[in-house]
Amino acid sequence: MYITIIGSGNVATHVAAAFKNAGHKIIQVYSRNYQNAALLAYHVGAEAIDNIEKIDPAANIFVIAVKDDAIAQIAARLAVHQKLIVHTSGATDLFTITKLNPLAGVFYPLQTFSKVKEVDFWQVPLCIEGVNDQITQQLEDLARTVSNNVQRVNSAQRKILHLAAVFACNFPNGLYAIAGQLLAQHQLDFDLLRPLILETAQKVQNNVPLDVQTGPAIRNDEQTMAAHLDLLSNEPQLQLIYKILSQSIIKMGAEHNADK
Amino acid sequence: MYITIIGSGNVATHVAAAFKNAGHKIIQVYSRNYQNAALLAYHVGAEAIDNIEKIDPAANIFVIAVKDDAIAQIAARLAVHQKLIVHTSGATDLFTITKLNPLAGVFYPLQTFSKVKEVDFWQVPLCIEGVNDQITQQLEDLARTVSNNVQRVNSAQRKILHLAAVFACNFPNGLYAIAGQLLAQHQLDFDLLRPLILETAQKVQNNVPLDVQTGPAIRNDEQTMAAHLDLLSNEPQLQLIYKILSQSIIKMGAEHNADK
Repeated sequence: MYITIIGSGNVATHVAAAFKNAGHKIIQVYSRNYQNAALLAYHVGAEAIDNIEKIDPAANIFVIAVKDDAIAQIAARLAVHQKLIVHTSGATDLFTITKLNPLAGVFYPLQTFSKVKEVDFWQVPLCIEGVNDQITQQLEDLARTVSNNVQRVNSAQRKILHLAAVFACNFPNGLYAIAGQLLAQHQLDFDLLRPLILETAQKVQNNVPLDVQTGPAIRNDEQTMAAHLDLLSNEPQLQLIYKILSQSIIKMGAEHNADK
Repeated sequence: MYITIIGSGNVATHVAAAFKNAGHKIIQVYSRNYQNAALLAYHVGAEAIDNIEKIDPAANIFVIAVKDDAIAQIAARLAVHQKLIVHTSGATDLFTITKLNPLAGVFYPLQTFSKVKEVDFWQVPLCIEGVNDQITQQLEDLARTVSNNVQRVNSAQRKILHLAAVFACNFPNGLYAIAGQLLAQHQLDFDLLRPLILETAQKVQNNVPLDVQTGPAIRNDEQTMAAHLDLLSNEPQLQLIYKILSQSIIKMGAEHNADK
């Protein structure tokens, strides 16, 4: 496929590299910032452009990987070419494109990308959606050239996935940061927690989370929870986080046991 | 070393196996429940007992791996032998033992253990504390026979570590469970999130969490956060969790950037 990438951020970078590695031709990389476009374009053997007027209409597909609130305006500018346009956003409706361009789809990689770390794209769940069966099939075929985990997911489901990903990724990372701050305040190294963090994530690769839940909340160990809240007496925000997450675990644990 | 294990739960099981694999002799395994004692004793070639009167005083060290609130009463019963007694608890003071038995220490493995999954004990951070330098050294030597990550940690620091572990392990696992419930409610499979969960934990193995924080909160993307809260309109408890964790990430992100 002849593919043009709109954007030069984390998602654009990893998606463009995956397409190139699969043998597709990346024609152009567009970014408002020419240097960013040039850096990614260099890596994937494409032309860098910072002016959307210079879009080459030879592309079979435009892949928009920009901030959610910029998708509509980019799609509006690309609609003149009447090509297939897809976005890569979990939180954005397919309608954002279809209202401007009839050939539309979604290509949502459900993974957290950062430029500091390689990702095995073959393992990345790719959630695809097309405006009709033909486009859905076309996107599925394209997705299978870069991932072993391709799923058809409609816009309503994709929004739930995006929300769930916040709970499963962004919030846990925020909790890692809190734990790191508690350690730093007491001259303890974050390295002490790293094996625990990894093991916690590895355990749910083959188990249901509530089956492997540990800690004072799931045991309803009120003495330990009270001691922990006491240690946080100068940190009311952390006390609140501790209380409501513990309550949630206690409640889920009780329901989970009732289901057994 | 001749070691007796008091307890037959997750920690007792993994610690006993690590000692045995390192060539130590497990003399006895005690549990109130004889069947549990027998199961673990069988695996580590020890005698199973369910009566603390039958303790063999030939042990060099008693390792108490029972519920926190049972440590003191067990230590009181073992004190008659005047041997080294250590507990394995993150939340329990060394004084809980020293007030009953002068030869006392702590041997706290900072990992989440479950009987369903093997753990590479060499990677487990072992936090040790002794009532005096000689015992501390003795415990450090013992610890180094089973782990490459041995740390001297006092009781005050250990309590912080235990609290931090709740934020870094128990709460993230609870959030995985919430994410799984959101998916199940919309006929989506938890497998879609598993690579994301693993990658999130892997990213902080070589990075500081706030440097790799992603998602709407760290971007202060108010539109997406409002849409997510809207999706949770029937789940007030999840809305509250979403709000306070997002606020925490926004605040930490701002402070982190100010530090740069």
